[in-house]
Amino acid sequence: MSQLEVCFSPDLLHLYSLEGKNVVVVDILRATSCMVTALSFGVKAIHPFSDLDECMRMKSKGLLVAAERDGMKVDGFDFGNSPFSFMEEGVAGKEIAFTTTNGTVAINKSRNADLIIIGAFLNLSSVINFIKTEEKDIVIVCAGWKGKFNLEDTIYAGALVENLHDFHTSDDGALAAKHLYQSAKNDLYGFLRDSSHFNRLQRLNIKKDIEFCLTPDQYSVIPVVQDGIIVKG
Amino acid sequence: MSQLEVCFSPDLLHLYSLEGKNVVVVDILRATSCMVTALSFGVKAIHPFSDLDECMRMKSKGLLVAAERDGMKVDGFDFGNSPFSFMEEGVAGKEIAFTTTNGTVAINKSRNADLIIIGAFLNLSSVINFIKTEEKDIVIVCAGWKGKFNLEDTIYAGALVENLHDFHTSDDGALAAKHLYQSAKNDLYGFLRDSSHFNRLQRLNIKKDIEFCLTPDQYSVIPVVQDGIIVKG
Repeated sequence: MSQLEVCFSPDLLHLYSLEGKNVVVVDILRATSCMVTALSFGVKAIHPFSDLDECMRMKSKGLLVAAERDGMKVDGFDFGNSPFSFMEEGVAGKEIAFTTTNGTVAINKSRNADLIIIGAFLNLSSVINFIKTEEKDIVIVCAGWKGKFNLEDTIYAGALVENLHDFHTSDDGALAAKHLYQSAKNDLYGFLRDSSHFNRLQRLNIKKDIEFCLTPDQYSVIPVVQDGIIVKG
Repeated sequence: MSQLEVCFSPDLLHLYSLEGKNVVVVDILRATSCMVTALSFGVKAIHPFSDLDECMRMKSKGLLVAAERDGMKVDGFDFGNSPFSFMEEGVAGKEIAFTTTNGTVAINKSRNADLIIIGAFLNLSSVINFIKTEEKDIVIVCAGWKGKFNLEDTIYAGALVENLHDFHTSDDGALAAKHLYQSAKNDLYGFLRDSSHFNRLQRLNIKKDIEFCLTPDQYSVIPVVQDGIIVKG
């Protein structure tokens, strides 16, 4: 029976063995939600960067560049971290260099896995079906916030755990995530209203982004990381 | 308004500022439950050690020595990690050197705090009342299991959060802990039955220990760390 584990923070990844396993990286608000949206709107590839300057340098190589720090678009970049900005017609067929506070860090730290899948509520059912077909051990890596646990990524992990009955979950992270999802699932927005990142983002007036990022199954795309680059799986 | 945060693992402590704050360290199964029990039965002081050899060397200085690794008493030591072993008449007035897989590590990593309080269900109400009186910022440090998140310490943290309404909780760890405690509180034992540490300890046939460690308010003692040594507060 395949194993399912949940890692609450990139800062705890040293405790997990990723070799021979598949990883789902999740950063609901908003990096992985953006990636799913962008690939659904025809973006050809997303290059994840941890470093802002390295990301910007890709502009001279003809890529679009996107950057978010502390919830805000960074000056000089083409895009920030709103999924709606990746719905523009001009993005189809393009490659994007992307750096965010948490999500791209989590992706880069997961590189020892056999396969990295990009998960979000927006492609929830597709990811669940893909994992079921693969039948490999899974580690769900929550991007968190600057290394700390966060609720929205955990709730998403719980949605996966609840729907992957055939996987064995021996770790408490998976059990906690499932319990929290069960408490939250009838009203995700209401459940998360008191969370730290909601408050951080609400100050930035992006309620529409938050509501969209919590909507399941808008897209069927499954982004995966191949040779360090995010493409359609 | 004082702040209340919950840190799920000693491996995440670098993300928290402890200066000027009080810390509650919790390792329900079973280090902090043992410490509360031992001080209630008259033990004068407990010296926490991370290292097994250092702990054993204290025997030659006249201390009793206690050591647990992977849930089991270590050969050659006077005690393991069962609260019942600290109820013997012979312990009153003695000093104990104590090393455990997780609890004593968490204590030693929290040394930058103004005050470290030893928390367990066994002294739940006393700790809550003490924190309310102090009115200082609090970080609850869950000992976890070898750096990983665990459920039983988180549930205890949630019990504190639920009972400390007058503290501001801006972090998601505190919110998650409270939700999990609310799901668990009517049947702590049943809620934790699937947890990783339960399964680990059940193999060691110590159901009686587990049930005892989940019983609130058996003692009123509040152990605190003074100059690196655990004594009655």
